[in-house]
Amino acid sequence: ARGREASSPAGAKAAFNVIPELTRVYETKIKPLEDAYSFENFHTPSLSPADIAAKPMVLLMGQYSVGKTTFIKHLLGRDYIGAHIGPEPTTDRFIAVMDGPERSIPGNAAAVSTDLPFTGLSRFGVSFLNKFQVSQSPVPALDNMILIDTPGILSGEKQRIGRAYDFPDVIEWFAQRADMILLLFDAHKLDISDEFKEALMTLRGHDDKIRVVLNKADMVNGQQLMRVYGALMWSLGKVMQTPEVVRVYIGSFWDQPMQNRDCENLLKAEQQDLFNHIKGLPRNAAIRKINEIVKRARLVQVHALIIAHLRHEMPSFFGKGNKQNELMENIEVEFLKVQRMHQLAPGDFPSPERYREKLADFKLQKFPKLDKKSMQAIIDASGALATDLPNLMRQIPEAPQILPSHVQN
Amino acid sequence: ARGREASSPAGAKAAFNVIPELTRVYETKIKPLEDAYSFENFHTPSLSPADIAAKPMVLLMGQYSVGKTTFIKHLLGRDYIGAHIGPEPTTDRFIAVMDGPERSIPGNAAAVSTDLPFTGLSRFGVSFLNKFQVSQSPVPALDNMILIDTPGILSGEKQRIGRAYDFPDVIEWFAQRADMILLLFDAHKLDISDEFKEALMTLRGHDDKIRVVLNKADMVNGQQLMRVYGALMWSLGKVMQTPEVVRVYIGSFWDQPMQNRDCENLLKAEQQDLFNHIKGLPRNAAIRKINEIVKRARLVQVHALIIAHLRHEMPSFFGKGNKQNELMENIEVEFLKVQRMHQLAPGDFPSPERYREKLADFKLQKFPKLDKKSMQAIIDASGALATDLPNLMRQIPEAPQILPSHVQN
Ligand SMILES: Nc1ncnc2c1ncn2[C@@H]1O[C@H](COP(=O)(O)OP(=O)(O)OP(=O)(O)O)[C@@H](O)[C@H]1O
Ligand SMILES: Nc1ncnc2c1ncn2[C@@H]1O[C@H](COP(=O)(O)OP(=O)(O)OP(=O)(O)O)[C@@H](O)[C@H]1O
Ligand SMILES: [Mg+2]
Ligand SMILES: [Mg+2]
Repeated sequence: ARGREASSPAGAKAAFNVIPELTRVYETKIKPLEDAYSFENFHTPSLSPADIAAKPMVLLMGQYSVGKTTFIKHLLGRDYIGAHIGPEPTTDRFIAVMDGPERSIPGNAAAVSTDLPFTGLSRFGVSFLNKFQVSQSPVPALDNMILIDTPGILSGEKQRIGRAYDFPDVIEWFAQRADMILLLFDAHKLDISDEFKEALMTLRGHDDKIRVVLNKADMVNGQQLMRVYGALMWSLGKVMQTPEVVRVYIGSFWDQPMQNRDCENLLKAEQQDLFNHIKGLPRNAAIRKINEIVKRARLVQVHALIIAHLRHEMPSFFGKGNKQNELMENIEVEFLKVQRMHQLAPGDFPSPERYREKLADFKLQKFPKLDKKSMQAIIDASGALATDLPNLMRQIPEAPQILPSHVQN
Repeated sequence: ARGREASSPAGAKAAFNVIPELTRVYETKIKPLEDAYSFENFHTPSLSPADIAAKPMVLLMGQYSVGKTTFIKHLLGRDYIGAHIGPEPTTDRFIAVMDGPERSIPGNAAAVSTDLPFTGLSRFGVSFLNKFQVSQSPVPALDNMILIDTPGILSGEKQRIGRAYDFPDVIEWFAQRADMILLLFDAHKLDISDEFKEALMTLRGHDDKIRVVLNKADMVNGQQLMRVYGALMWSLGKVMQTPEVVRVYIGSFWDQPMQNRDCENLLKAEQQDLFNHIKGLPRNAAIRKINEIVKRARLVQVHALIIAHLRHEMPSFFGKGNKQNELMENIEVEFLKVQRMHQLAPGDFPSPERYREKLADFKLQKFPKLDKKSMQAIIDASGALATDLPNLMRQIPEAPQILPSHVQN
């Protein structure tokens, strides 16, 4: 029965409900434990509601003029503020295209808006934020995702001069958060520059998110298309280190009629496949988020038990400093004690070296004793892991989400 | 005028006349110098008329059941003796398919026939020759080439057991002599085994001769074909080290009607391209042979001048042994003298170490003095290099040769 419900519109709606509930579980059952034991100083910053609510992100990358901006416009079914299209390098900035009232938010403002998932970008400074912009449109296609348009990767000198920020670092930031990375190539003008190969290197570790689009495929005839496609796969095989073949979608992603109809059926089927894949993103993004929070919950639990144990070992009056030093020196032994005491998975324990380093900034006696309140926080986190999160997982629908009708088939 | 003549049937015929004339030039102007100075002991055996006359060779390779034997049958337009076709591993031997009266010559007999270009195979011994066979047919398609059918490359254990000879060594022998190496893959069952990748390694250095056939392309639909082709290019890009993309011909090379017509036009165009390429082989083969003989002529000339110089340095009566040792020790210095004296290209000189080694087998005084006769031999070789061989080169027609009509378009 659940399976049927999941593939109905009601089921589709359920994917949305996952986010508030996930936020509630995190805020009431996991974050209190994080706060009590300063988890964010040992791991990564606590998640904000905006982080959890962030829609799946699709990062578009490619050399200039391959059709990135046109692709987004085609997906939305309309223009968006800041979209510039042309045969020369046009897009000069990163643009986050997302749902909202028709408006554009400059980068510096976007980076301080806690209701947007871009606060992390402030670390790249004003020189980058001047080249970042959020472009909101009230478009159904954006109900379920954020698209990141990027400046085309130029080759040679031009690449280095003119960019006041660290391009690969910024790409890496978006790649980490993205649910899909779309690499676009132009079938009509395929030359993979060294600069683009370098950009591909920065994507290592995110290979599972990468999909390739061989765009403008109707600009050449069938045999030429085969040559170009073959050359693309040949080069990608050399650059990408995974044995699994990357999925390439061959098509022409814009609103114009096809020029060359040699491979019309193929291109149509390919475009459909890509759109189906994009439709499936929200579901995967929800799973990815639950997964991430499960991971955090396990880690914070172990962290709390370690600190509680170390706290317990501290003397009540004298020799606190010495005792802390002694514990820190033998932290591996203490880890082992905690692990056995609570039957924890060794894989959930942090690296002893880094932990020692972080711990040096704290006075152990300042952490709370394992009193009723902190006991309750640990029990709450356990409950989230044992019950709430698995329940949420079960609510994820199996059917793909809805995209605007003009790309539905 | 020559251009026009070259593309006429008369021009096509001229390619054939190159061989007798090339043989004559080699036999009368180059081989005498080789013999006078024992060149074959320092380099490689002298060429026999059969070596020079050998038609362009096409080596077919691939995993079992990809359709190698069927491909040859299709090219000939008929069966040939020894052709076995079937879904299980069928071809268990190397078969040289060539022009001649309908008959089959077993490997051991073929290796001693000086009118066949296979005498070199005797070095692989009886265990290989038992698995080698020449299959002659009076077929027009074989006027201009020899096709080498090979046993399919199996994967896993089976590869090693059951083969009494060194498979990679034999492949290397044929690859060196081949004008084209065709690697066949099955679009319907593409799995590139480790054994096949190893076989590809032995082809390193012959990359320019390699062409790939993605066979049985009509057994899958258009989108599947794209996936398979992409996966093939991806893998080949990883295995082959050249930056240039290898040419892949997508088709179905047999006499049956096409199953899936998604890509009918593409497959037809591809098959035509491959046949055109094969038609051009005789021309390229003739050029390659002239090239090889030019190379030999340059090398033997330098060799003769070195020996004549060393011979000249020898005392008339006493101390021959000591002098030879002295010369051999400082062979680099002697090379330099010869090079300056005759203004030769340093690149035409042999490796000093290997030369020293070879020279140890000879007594310098046994070589002829630089008398009138050996002078003439050197002059003859120079003449061949300056006049005869360039003349021959000019006679090569620019038009492709003729294949049987059923594969002409
Ligand atoms: N599918 C297509 N077929 C043919 N031409 C296309 C296609 N998509 C876009 N174009 C054309 O290619 C050019 C570049 O398009 P666009 O500006 O969208 O590329 P871009 O990748 O965003 O470039 P940049 O990196 O400079 O921002 C434009 O002239 C556009 O009209
Ligand atoms: N173009 C084609 N399309 C579909 N099937 C084919 C095609 N060519 C050959 N086959 C079939 O594939 C099977 C193997 O063919 P064949 O024996 O020619 O392959 P092979 O590469 O020579 O194999 P082996 O290495 O065992 O000698 C046969 O059943 C044959 O009928
Ligand atoms: Mg753009
Ligand atoms: Mg066979």
